[in-house]
Amino acid sequence: MHPDRSPEPAAPSTGRLSRRHLLLGGAAAGVGAAALVGADSLLNTRSTPPLGETPGAAAHGGQTVPFHGTHQAGVETPPQAHGKFVAVDLAEDVDAEKIRRLLTLLSDDAAKLTQGKAALADSEPELAFVPARLTVTFGFGPGLVDRVPGVPAPAWLKPLPEFSVDRLRPEWNSGDLLMQICADDPLTVSHAARMLIKDTRAFGTVRWTQDGFRRAYGAEPDGTTMRNLMGQVDGTVNARPDTDAFETMVWEPRDNPEWLHGGTGMVVRRIAMDLDEWDRLDRPGREESVGRRLFDGAPLTGGTEHDEPDFDALTPLGFPRIAEYAHIRRARSDNPDEQVFRRAYNYDVPTLGDEGQDAGLIFVSYQSDVDLQFVPIQRRLDELDLLNEWISPIGSAVFAVPPGCAEGGFIGETLFPA
Amino acid sequence: MHPDRSPEPAAPSTGRLSRRHLLLGGAAAGVGAAALVGADSLLNTRSTPPLGETPGAAAHGGQTVPFHGTHQAGVETPPQAHGKFVAVDLAEDVDAEKIRRLLTLLSDDAAKLTQGKAALADSEPELAFVPARLTVTFGFGPGLVDRVPGVPAPAWLKPLPEFSVDRLRPEWNSGDLLMQICADDPLTVSHAARMLIKDTRAFGTVRWTQDGFRRAYGAEPDGTTMRNLMGQVDGTVNARPDTDAFETMVWEPRDNPEWLHGGTGMVVRRIAMDLDEWDRLDRPGREESVGRRLFDGAPLTGGTEHDEPDFDALTPLGFPRIAEYAHIRRARSDNPDEQVFRRAYNYDVPTLGDEGQDAGLIFVSYQSDVDLQFVPIQRRLDELDLLNEWISPIGSAVFAVPPGCAEGGFIGETLFPA
Ligand code: HEM
Ligand code: HEM
Repeated sequence: MHPDRSPEPAAPSTGRLSRRHLLLGGAAAGVGAAALVGADSLLNTRSTPPLGETPGAAAHGGQTVPFHGTHQAGVETPPQAHGKFVAVDLAEDVDAEKIRRLLTLLSDDAAKLTQGKAALADSEPELAFVPARLTVTFGFGPGLVDRVPGVPAPAWLKPLPEFSVDRLRPEWNSGDLLMQICADDPLTVSHAARMLIKDTRAFGTVRWTQDGFRRAYGAEPDGTTMRNLMGQVDGTVNARPDTDAFETMVWEPRDNPEWLHGGTGMVVRRIAMDLDEWDRLDRPGREESVGRRLFDGAPLTGGTEHDEPDFDALTPLGFPRIAEYAHIRRARSDNPDEQVFRRAYNYDVPTLGDEGQDAGLIFVSYQSDVDLQFVPIQRRLDELDLLNEWISPIGSAVFAVPPGCAEGGFIGETLFPA
Repeated sequence: MHPDRSPEPAAPSTGRLSRRHLLLGGAAAGVGAAALVGADSLLNTRSTPPLGETPGAAAHGGQTVPFHGTHQAGVETPPQAHGKFVAVDLAEDVDAEKIRRLLTLLSDDAAKLTQGKAALADSEPELAFVPARLTVTFGFGPGLVDRVPGVPAPAWLKPLPEFSVDRLRPEWNSGDLLMQICADDPLTVSHAARMLIKDTRAFGTVRWTQDGFRRAYGAEPDGTTMRNLMGQVDGTVNARPDTDAFETMVWEPRDNPEWLHGGTGMVVRRIAMDLDEWDRLDRPGREESVGRRLFDGAPLTGGTEHDEPDFDALTPLGFPRIAEYAHIRRARSDNPDEQVFRRAYNYDVPTLGDEGQDAGLIFVSYQSDVDLQFVPIQRRLDELDLLNEWISPIGSAVFAVPPGCAEGGFIGETLFPA
């Protein structure tokens, strides 16, 4: 019936499993056996006949991003299609020693999962075999750092100052431990989140989870800037990971305590969009509110997406071509310190009845000093930015993102000097 | 800085937009201009320099599935990575004439969006330019059909009989109009849903929305059967759209009224999985509950995924190798009528605190007579199926899926004979 079937994979045969099950007892034997099998083997050997006319595509699910290194993955990593942000609150009795245990557990599972291997106690090991560029990035809130005696927190590791645009809801704020789980496959993200959340269960509870998305892997030509749900090209002016500007912005230690060197700071803001009101605005009005064209993200002063806006250009009537209230004018600073690296995701949560849409942007920025780099920009936007008519921050959290670790180490080990 | 940039696309220039804006007034002019631009042009002309080391991939976002045809798309279409199911309840004053208007509007926008074109009043036209195999499939609940005078409903168009496994919650049940919105890109699905839900606003309210996912497009080799969140290969024994079996199962009119010929019946069941309990079960137990191996979905009686299970095989101790309570034994029927075509999606909704996971399967099946084909299977599974220990249907709805339409027509036109 299917003559092109590949030979039986070197999988645990059911017979063998049953024998081992009898000999060794249950789950451990089975899971252990399956966990030996890595992503490659599953992707390559499970050949099934094509269903209907699905067009050809090379399997990208096997791609991995290294977990170990100087910096954590998931910051420089070109944004994957899906991002899940999980904030955990630690239970009261979780002290430094328990934090160390938790971080060891999490790092170990993240290291495995990102490489397409099953987590230690993986209940669905096969779901791990499609890493799809999975990265897991950990961030620490003040509530975690405070519990490790003798460890100073960076001065900026606290809730952001209040802004007049804020409509913050407690359920989207703060958190002791943040896990940013990103991959090009939604099932991979779901599975990794499940495994990692299980690791945290004995140590705390989930405070919030935010699911985000961008364009699917390969849906657009490589390097196409994402669009947000207002339809704007979003992410054009953003340092590129291979540049000095990026190094300075994200990895420069500045005044951070030593345990954070090689790490950075992270801001997560859930920003709701009033899309129904936005829909009432005409197209030129929309373009003026940002200062860029909707069609291709080029500045209103002409050229294409990556051309420099001309902030001095005037209309024939003598008004600035890019308005004083335009988002890109307000977000840009002459001060080289005031720069952040943005890595945002869209969100769109189903609603009922005639509630309208619960959609917006999971704004994520990385910068080594949140007070120095992020706050002045947000303050300027708070004072004047036409976009504020249609957007409201409803959640806000700040995390310290510790450096990466070498094999055998764990994320956060620098909190516990030997 | 970016010398490989492509020349300025033939896009509405801002200057022209502003002129037209002055002449014609606001939104209409702007949106109209952009709407002239189709998927191809945007995908090909918005060339930006590659960001970091994103590996190469041909853009699949330009792929389209025809909207017009004998049957609606989204049934035979190889399942896309993302599926959104939106059930709308019609307002009390919506009569046959209004239904006709609503369906005309929806069909028109679905026809455009699936071909990568902006919807009629598209507020974010550029989000429409990546069709990514978008399909929109409409289903009619009894509440819609009843409102069209003189139109008989198929006998099976009613809530399913009660089953003892059911834990139905009213918020996931029924609905007058169903829109199944599937594409390989999550932003495409989000945008299409927004446009189509807006079309329905004057006619009713959203009763429920279910977001589902499978593996990302191209993440696994073509034709790989999906896995569900229990880790099982799910969808192995399922008729292929190009076969006689499929034709009979899905498109055979049987006793359906004439307006439904070329259409079919649809069952949507939201089935929650108790993954925490499932995790407690050992691997052999899991495999026995289904009758297939977890590693590759092959029957417990050997071979590979698509080999026939041997339901007569016995273990050395004389027990059936595929247990009496195994899901695949219970789900299979000797009666050739009792066959359905399954097209399910996973769901995984973020939860808070220690609520555990809100995850499961959006079970979707197509069959031309729900009573004849689906109900007996579900009844058998209700009586005995070890999987029932870990799964509970929490939502249930039945829809009549009308035939496709030709260009210029609309889905549901057969309800309104000339
Ligand atoms: C929902 C909320 C927001 C939306 C829809 C939005 C949208 C945009 C868009 C369309 C651009 C132009 C394209 C680009 O360069 O990426 C832009 C640029 C920018 N945005 Fe935002 N943005 C939002 C929130 C924020 C926030 C909270 C910040 C930081 C506090 C921020 C900082 C920036 C910066 C720094 C730029 C680049 C400006 C330049 O130098 O040209 N944005 N944003
Ligand atoms: C969460 C709920 C369910 C899960 C996890 C599940 C899982 C599975 C799995 C793993 C298989 C074997 C692989 C395959 O052939 O696809 C299977 C087969 C099947 N399932 Fe389910 N299933 C569920 C609900 C249902 C329901 C509600 C029905 C119909 C009432 C159904 C009907 C079938 C049929 C007809 C087969 C093929 C049986 C054969 O080999 O002939 N399943 N299911």
